[in-house]
Amino acid sequence: VTAPDPDRPHFLWAQVEYDGTDFQGFQIQAQGRTVQGEIERALQKLTQVPTRVVGAGRTDSGVHARGQMIAFRVRWRHRVADLHRGLNAVLPADLSLPKMAEAPAGFHPRFSAVARMYRYTVWTGEFRSPLVARYAHHEATTVNRAAMQQAAQCVIGTHDFAAFGRAPQGENTHRQVMRADWSHQGQFLTFDIEANAFLYRMVRSLVGTMLWVGTGRLPPGAVEHILASADRSLAAPPAPACGLCLMQVIYPEGVLQ
Amino acid sequence: VTAPDPDRPHFLWAQVEYDGTDFQGFQIQAQGRTVQGEIERALQKLTQVPTRVVGAGRTDSGVHARGQMIAFRVRWRHRVADLHRGLNAVLPADLSLPKMAEAPAGFHPRFSAVARMYRYTVWTGEFRSPLVARYAHHEATTVNRAAMQQAAQCVIGTHDFAAFGRAPQGENTHRQVMRADWSHQGQFLTFDIEANAFLYRMVRSLVGTMLWVGTGRLPPGAVEHILASADRSLAAPPAPACGLCLMQVIYPEGVLQ
Repeated sequence: VTAPDPDRPHFLWAQVEYDGTDFQGFQIQAQGRTVQGEIERALQKLTQVPTRVVGAGRTDSGVHARGQMIAFRVRWRHRVADLHRGLNAVLPADLSLPKMAEAPAGFHPRFSAVARMYRYTVWTGEFRSPLVARYAHHEATTVNRAAMQQAAQCVIGTHDFAAFGRAPQGENTHRQVMRADWSHQGQFLTFDIEANAFLYRMVRSLVGTMLWVGTGRLPPGAVEHILASADRSLAAPPAPACGLCLMQVIYPEGVLQ
Repeated sequence: VTAPDPDRPHFLWAQVEYDGTDFQGFQIQAQGRTVQGEIERALQKLTQVPTRVVGAGRTDSGVHARGQMIAFRVRWRHRVADLHRGLNAVLPADLSLPKMAEAPAGFHPRFSAVARMYRYTVWTGEFRSPLVARYAHHEATTVNRAAMQQAAQCVIGTHDFAAFGRAPQGENTHRQVMRADWSHQGQFLTFDIEANAFLYRMVRSLVGTMLWVGTGRLPPGAVEHILASADRSLAAPPAPACGLCLMQVIYPEGVLQ
């Protein structure tokens, strides 16, 4: 009979939800409050050991997440469920871990992922609405929804998205978009996009440009034209961060139980 | 031909929407940021004259509103629509006036009202959710929805609600409840209540007590029993302010066009 190891090593994944309003984005930085920084601080508080957290993707300052994914290695003598509850108790009000479990060896939140889903929300009421402003960009002018949906359809497939964002170092700017759809409910417009991966600012740049199409500042065919040009100077400025939410990171079936 | 009065007097009503999180309630106070205070400050900024705003009802610190109502007298030489736009431009991000128009003589936001509707939102997920926490109270335990709906039904009608709140000075504690319903969608529980008027803390006290019924801390018949007792010490503590929203103030048909 061997004595049980008091602090057993664990390799864990967790789903991360945050209200991005008061974060300088996901990734830890020299200055400013970040999601990664707050999670690492909570882990250190509970385990007494500095722990590095790896995320599926950086989100910009002000961008929200319902389904960001992280993984980390940690020593912990109690049940994983206790660490999970403890972290949620210690984390600040605008950040939580809805799910946490043991990860399979070799799992990487970013490199194991096969797709990501983002949602961008636009509020089209005549006046700004304080109860929706935190999670939706306000576009006061009427928009041509059909033109926006048409623009969305032409980004589906594998394209060089250089006009709509910057690639991480060492990567090219080709991405495969599986879904891109505008829908509406009352005065909300919602853009759902799923791709194998995204360039920096890609969703917000696409949305900004599609909103210019929807409001008539650009002609209906502009998105297709700008995409083909691969020229960033032709795209509209990125839509504001508050409307964007990382909804889900998708892994091959069976990787995470 | 008479010269037009440069600053014409107006008697105006407005609908008021606010995120109550960072307000010390609606009503102006010696200290603290209030909804009334911010609106009066904005009016003074635009008209250069101190203006008193009258509201339909006080909401407590942290309570939200989609349809609070106000009225005020003001002198303004331009169109009312310009004052409306100007106020929304000057008011802080967590406060806006979705509607504004001339009020009929004798209109009073509180005394002309025939009913009010409040909504209380509960989030029943296992873990707290940062993206819903601002507008929903988190109840982590499973609740008996049928028992809560049964409790809600017994407050319908005219009752002495002394057990669930305090009356404004000079008023009795009888109120007429026209509707009281729990509904659910996914992990959200929503309580909608409409009454001719409400006591202070009445909705939150009712919700707090119904949640104790729903989670088994009080027996199914408790609300009916506590209502009949008129004894405030028997009710549960008020549910947190963040879940409550003043949805609508209702006036007799034709009073406000």
